[in-house]
Amino acid sequence: SKNYNITLLPGDGIGPEIMAVAKTCLVEVGSQHDIAFDFTEALVGGAAIDATGIPLPPETLATCQASDAVLLAAIGGYKWDTLPAEQRPEQGLLGLRAGLGVFANLRPANILPQLIDASSLKREVVEGTDIMVIRRLIGGIYFGKPKGFGVDDAGNKTGFNTMIYSVPEIERIARVGFETAKKRSNRLCSVEKSNVLEVSQALVTRIGAEEYPDVELSHMYVDNAAMQIIRAPTQFDTIVTGNIFGDILSDAASMLTGSIGMLPSAAVGSDGPGLFEPVHGSAPDIAGTDKANPLAQVLSAAMMLRYQFGEEEAAAKLEKAVNDLLDDGYRTGDIMSEGCTQVGCTKMGEILMAKL
Amino acid sequence: SKNYNITLLPGDGIGPEIMAVAKTCLVEVGSQHDIAFDFTEALVGGAAIDATGIPLPPETLATCQASDAVLLAAIGGYKWDTLPAEQRPEQGLLGLRAGLGVFANLRPANILPQLIDASSLKREVVEGTDIMVIRRLIGGIYFGKPKGFGVDDAGNKTGFNTMIYSVPEIERIARVGFETAKKRSNRLCSVEKSNVLEVSQALVTRIGAEEYPDVELSHMYVDNAAMQIIRAPTQFDTIVTGNIFGDILSDAASMLTGSIGMLPSAAVGSDGPGLFEPVHGSAPDIAGTDKANPLAQVLSAAMMLRYQFGEEEAAAKLEKAVNDLLDDGYRTGDIMSEGCTQVGCTKMGEILMAKL
Ligand SMILES: CC(C)[C@H](C(=O)O)[C@@H](O)C(=O)O
Ligand SMILES: CC(C)[C@H](C(=O)O)[C@@H](O)C(=O)O
Repeated sequence: SKNYNITLLPGDGIGPEIMAVAKTCLVEVGSQHDIAFDFTEALVGGAAIDATGIPLPPETLATCQASDAVLLAAIGGYKWDTLPAEQRPEQGLLGLRAGLGVFANLRPANILPQLIDASSLKREVVEGTDIMVIRRLIGGIYFGKPKGFGVDDAGNKTGFNTMIYSVPEIERIARVGFETAKKRSNRLCSVEKSNVLEVSQALVTRIGAEEYPDVELSHMYVDNAAMQIIRAPTQFDTIVTGNIFGDILSDAASMLTGSIGMLPSAAVGSDGPGLFEPVHGSAPDIAGTDKANPLAQVLSAAMMLRYQFGEEEAAAKLEKAVNDLLDDGYRTGDIMSEGCTQVGCTKMGEILMAKL
Repeated sequence: SKNYNITLLPGDGIGPEIMAVAKTCLVEVGSQHDIAFDFTEALVGGAAIDATGIPLPPETLATCQASDAVLLAAIGGYKWDTLPAEQRPEQGLLGLRAGLGVFANLRPANILPQLIDASSLKREVVEGTDIMVIRRLIGGIYFGKPKGFGVDDAGNKTGFNTMIYSVPEIERIARVGFETAKKRSNRLCSVEKSNVLEVSQALVTRIGAEEYPDVELSHMYVDNAAMQIIRAPTQFDTIVTGNIFGDILSDAASMLTGSIGMLPSAAVGSDGPGLFEPVHGSAPDIAGTDKANPLAQVLSAAMMLRYQFGEEEAAAKLEKAVNDLLDDGYRTGDIMSEGCTQVGCTKMGEILMAKL
């Protein structure tokens, strides 16, 4: 029997509630596929600030690094919004990404047929949307140096950040892009602002044409991509882009689906543990009210099974359970529509277990 | 009788065709309101590269600087896409913006009731959308130094750009934002990534509360803004943001309307001439086929009359002519829908003249 060490990071807001559901489901699906999980819980984000004063305690990072995979719920909340930037929950997340070396963030945005009417886009426009945004997660303007505050020639106070990429950073993510596109529809769109930015031109790489002759590579400027994703999202298959562009575009893409509470993500790329988390945030306004949608967390666990462990069957089992309960008309408040049955987070967990 | 010196920059692609329509309309509306225009044509973008080897000849900039306002059509095209970045048509546009000191780019995205069905969003979601995006046009990562190519500690080639703002740059655009919001619905949303970027924190300024107590100021992260604009665009009134964020968000906002061929923009802020241009590009694929939609160019001329010269009546006259012909069902190909009459660029110009 296989045994995996998983670090669970419930984080803040609705995090603990949705993580509880995902954990129960993992145990169940594991037992069906002869997989045992050793779970270790650790603190990150606001929860870690409250307990230890910092958003990413060294023990947490060490625990994550020593495990086989990390499952995160969500971090942040109004409570910590007034702290100086370098002490905020977000820094815990950035530190975790960097500390794990997970340079590629896979953010799928696909329309679930059962939820298509939740989209703000017309049915005929979004139907069939299935985009995978691959974002460079641990470089670019999020981490580039120099950064900080200064004084310009005229004596005025300035703030500045550096957007920087090296050729190997570009090449390794390009490979992830091509490999991903190969498993999908063989179309990769590289999104940059190469008509203006030098850093975008560092991307122009020839990897594709030689190593992946079957993948069709296209290029698009980021402003145009933001338009095209709204105009005709089905034109995209796999998108590869930088950290901040990916932050913006993946959020836009996930909103297209109308059900961001359903979208998982994976941060991978190192030889070590990957980081798996829902696209949505910690929703502090509904924390503790049993209203949260746990499905993106469960689907993040499925991504972990597939991408980290190659446990395709167990992953598919979790995904099928989610699909089946949607077919049966069960919905949390965020995806509720007429004629469906509204349930809370705990109840959703029970239904999932029944389906499994 | 008043007399204004206008520099016309037809640029590339469909530029000359749509500029011809705008010019004729300006002459007509001017003669009705006792305004005379002196037009000077100059070269910019690809047209300038072909004629002189560079995208912004010094004579062009001098002509623009010496005039009362600049009306630009569009620049760029496949033909110049293989040139090195610093020699491309885009550099002409950036040089023009910087040379004129037009630091505030006003990009309206409003839904025209006649064209609402052209939006990819559901009618009930977009109806009533009326957003003004104000973008910092001559700073930030587009112009920040240092920039270029280098070598990192590991000996790898890098590309880099600097996103930098000074407090006065932030304050002057904040004022434009508050003034604009005051004339609209008194709501200003400042869009940044201040949870991650130092440069975004330079924005946090207190101008608003004191000088504009009636304007409600809110803050939103750029990734969330990209989602919210798709989810519920009517929540926004005036948005103020940086150069690259504004590039992305204003394109997304204009695509919401489904009729980017209808949207004008204004770049203002200096004491001298402003720069007025359609949001759409040069559409090289349909250049010379008389298929272009000249209405955004005409509406850009209207913005020029209003913002540069305070000629409200003449501006309104142009806008009314556009509105009337839409009511009559005249459409160019890009905004065509069932039951309407499809016309070309020249014919659209004739209809406009008849309406005037
Ligand atoms: C919370 C924030 C630092 C983070 C980011 O910008 O990467 C979030 O927006 C995301 O996309 O995961
Ligand atoms: C052509 C390009 C340089 C320009 C920009 O990025 O500013 C364009 O996208 C725009 O928005 O006017």
